[in-house]
Amino acid sequence: MQTNTAYIELIRRVREEALLSSCEALLEWDEETYMPAGGVENRGEQLALLAGLLHDRGTDPLLGELLEELEGSDLMADPTTPAAVNVRELRREYDRYVRLPRRLVEDVARTTALAQAAWARARAEADFSTFRPWLEKVVELKRAEAECVGYVREPYDALIEDHEPGMTSQILARLFEALQRELVPLAPRIAEAAGTTKPLRKPFPVLQQRAFGEAVAVRVGFDPKRGRFDLGVHPCCTAIGPGDCRLVLRFDPQDFAGGLLTILHEVGHGLYEQGLDPQHYGTPTGEPASVGMDESQARLWENRVGRSLGFWQHFYPKAKELFPEPLAGVSLDRFLKTVNRVRPSLIRVNADEVTYNLHVLVRFEVERALMSGDLSVGDTPEAWNDGYRRYLGIVPSNDKEGCLQDGHWADGLIGYFPTYTLGDVFAAQLFASAEAELGSLETQFALGEFAPLVTWLGQKVFRAGGRLSSARLIESITGSPPDHRPLVQGLRTKYSRLYNL
Amino acid sequence: MQTNTAYIELIRRVREEALLSSCEALLEWDEETYMPAGGVENRGEQLALLAGLLHDRGTDPLLGELLEELEGSDLMADPTTPAAVNVRELRREYDRYVRLPRRLVEDVARTTALAQAAWARARAEADFSTFRPWLEKVVELKRAEAECVGYVREPYDALIEDHEPGMTSQILARLFEALQRELVPLAPRIAEAAGTTKPLRKPFPVLQQRAFGEAVAVRVGFDPKRGRFDLGVHPCCTAIGPGDCRLVLRFDPQDFAGGLLTILHEVGHGLYEQGLDPQHYGTPTGEPASVGMDESQARLWENRVGRSLGFWQHFYPKAKELFPEPLAGVSLDRFLKTVNRVRPSLIRVNADEVTYNLHVLVRFEVERALMSGDLSVGDTPEAWNDGYRRYLGIVPSNDKEGCLQDGHWADGLIGYFPTYTLGDVFAAQLFASAEAELGSLETQFALGEFAPLVTWLGQKVFRAGGRLSSARLIESITGSPPDHRPLVQGLRTKYSRLYNL
Repeated sequence: MQTNTAYIELIRRVREEALLSSCEALLEWDEETYMPAGGVENRGEQLALLAGLLHDRGTDPLLGELLEELEGSDLMADPTTPAAVNVRELRREYDRYVRLPRRLVEDVARTTALAQAAWARARAEADFSTFRPWLEKVVELKRAEAECVGYVREPYDALIEDHEPGMTSQILARLFEALQRELVPLAPRIAEAAGTTKPLRKPFPVLQQRAFGEAVAVRVGFDPKRGRFDLGVHPCCTAIGPGDCRLVLRFDPQDFAGGLLTILHEVGHGLYEQGLDPQHYGTPTGEPASVGMDESQARLWENRVGRSLGFWQHFYPKAKELFPEPLAGVSLDRFLKTVNRVRPSLIRVNADEVTYNLHVLVRFEVERALMSGDLSVGDTPEAWNDGYRRYLGIVPSNDKEGCLQDGHWADGLIGYFPTYTLGDVFAAQLFASAEAELGSLETQFALGEFAPLVTWLGQKVFRAGGRLSSARLIESITGSPPDHRPLVQGLRTKYSRLYNL
Repeated sequence: MQTNTAYIELIRRVREEALLSSCEALLEWDEETYMPAGGVENRGEQLALLAGLLHDRGTDPLLGELLEELEGSDLMADPTTPAAVNVRELRREYDRYVRLPRRLVEDVARTTALAQAAWARARAEADFSTFRPWLEKVVELKRAEAECVGYVREPYDALIEDHEPGMTSQILARLFEALQRELVPLAPRIAEAAGTTKPLRKPFPVLQQRAFGEAVAVRVGFDPKRGRFDLGVHPCCTAIGPGDCRLVLRFDPQDFAGGLLTILHEVGHGLYEQGLDPQHYGTPTGEPASVGMDESQARLWENRVGRSLGFWQHFYPKAKELFPEPLAGVSLDRFLKTVNRVRPSLIRVNADEVTYNLHVLVRFEVERALMSGDLSVGDTPEAWNDGYRRYLGIVPSNDKEGCLQDGHWADGLIGYFPTYTLGDVFAAQLFASAEAELGSLETQFALGEFAPLVTWLGQKVFRAGGRLSSARLIESITGSPPDHRPLVQGLRTKYSRLYNL
């Protein structure tokens, strides 16, 4: 076969896989938003079928032959061309994929579809015991997956690698160790300095919160003609395809800032998806570099933008117009302090910037131990609570505010949580570089100017797609490999200013 | 292969096809309800891919071999068993399917996805010219389809057969001829007798209409745990799978009765879907007998229930509570007359019971002529308007209220409209038989008792699935083959009572 013909055939196959995946994405989005309770079993069967089809295609020996042929061709001469990037990344995915038996893939899909419904019920009733058999099954399947895929040191590595190529438990453990050393003492210092700052819990009608949040999302650059907003139990961003990126939101009728930060988080993912090169849709060149890099965009918009003075200088007057009563007598300074309130808490998605990565640390340790077998599923609530005691100094009073709070495990996502912290680390590095090039971003935010930052991210991150691994991409943009110091430094600077620490 | 093994393999394959179809159904439902504008191209690609996969599976020679083996086995000894029914019907579908080249199937899927968006724009702008190239492409593809499938007398027959096995243009032409003879003179007689009855156009807030309509739907038997309600441009009922049946609704803020009748129409489809035997999901035994039989349920609930005195004796007091202002001073008698108002009109979905089938007749004649080549696509608006002049005595002032009003053609549905009239005919036959067995249904409706009718339909129609063709099923239940007289008789009786004709 001619090299060109082989490459065209490779891309045709891979694009068809992407289309099938995008059908899967719609089924998952629908499960999060609109599917009636009676649809859950069929949904499991649908997802299992698509997972099986994707597995068949992803492991087709012809794909391996095409890759082998292309790897020996002059298409690979320049490793930075889309063709070379695609062949390299598709090889990595193929090698991983062929190690997973179809039966296991289908089993994971079917189990997690049912486990999600079980988790939602267990969470509603704060009853770990009804979720436990599902988590046992998930852990068992993920350990089987790790054994099939292979790993050098420990099973958990095989799962991390799936979301963040090149990352390992060891590297993450060192990163968490450094963060923990800095953040565990920092959090109470800020909390003490903040003193009386109370959370702003007043009635903010959900319909208006939603309208305000969507307007902000559009204002900062999310294109609603190529996406939409819906409500669901677990906020997320689902790309159904180019031109169709959907944000699932959740609002607390008493917590205006929390809902808005959630939107900004998902907007960060959404801007990345909407900024990918549609020409390369369905191929690694047109996809996010990694889950951690994807998360960096969410964390950047949630924390670096959404908790900044500049952002609220622009939006707070509009918020006061919309919510005159609950915001009456609340100055911008007071509001900003509530948005940046630091306090050990139990629910990760509501956590402040400083303690957030300690929440992730708890999950990292629990997952690592579940995978190694050092922890049994039945002991998970205890290990979870113990982690909170150690790192945050507080203990959940029930499993709804403990180990049932996130749906990730029900979704089969083990090894995923650490990417949140990687995202935070990357976000801080990117933000510092953007400011070095563009000047004070907060000043721009205060003027309602978000386009310079979005354009910069588009050029540096979105359009780069999967050309480089996340670690190499960060180094190519910022000049440094992944580094926890900009994150810690950013927090120190901000909180010193806010509270004259 | 053992007969049992072959049958198990047949059912496994067919169920997998049903699952893939149910993914397609979700994509279509989403396109009708929530998909953002930017998603349309990718949606076309997704649907084309699934259509192609379904075509590959539906035409797999192994399927033909399995059918051949089973046809010679003793599974077929009793033709009423599920196994015999499934083999017979799957053979019919297979034979049709293998005649369609995959390229054509994909082309239809891709074209109709884009044509729907073009139709929605053209309809909004009342501009046939922008839809014309799409309709030309659709007609061309459907004629190609008819040539591939084959027919005895005319191409249109090949398309009708797809929705209503055993039905032909000739049989339908005779049926429409009889109905036209009866209904064309009846309509003005009723309109004259009704005299001053005006439509009830007052402000009915859409949110409340929706709440009322959903409550009615649940009250008559639609299970919301196994389904849901959404808004869209074109009302429809989409079964995503057992336990997940979705009704898409549309409301006119000035027309309360119209919106409610639309819901009841979709509820009729929904009850059928929810009443199918889940044990036989995905096989002909667990599917509606035909499109016409499916439509009969919609027409039964819309017309025989929703326009009856008994139904409104139960629900009108509740409607008055919810809409005290717009219904102030409107007596039940007056309201019932507006619900049963007969008047030649331009929009099929808002048509009264008497003229409805004349709307269908216009489409039947236009489609038949488009397929035979007697009519060119460019002349469609003229032929359409001419039909309305002849049968209804009125002419659309633009194409939005003319040939652009329905999305069926954009959807590739040619040969589908006649099933609406078949549905009306079947509904009248079924309703008469149910009354003969259960006593006065209107008396039951007045007491809020809908379960006896639903149960009767469940036993006679829903659970029968596709065991018999629609014509044979109607005969087995009512004792008569398809017959237009109960429909005409029912209308005469009702309107004579209402207006002392």
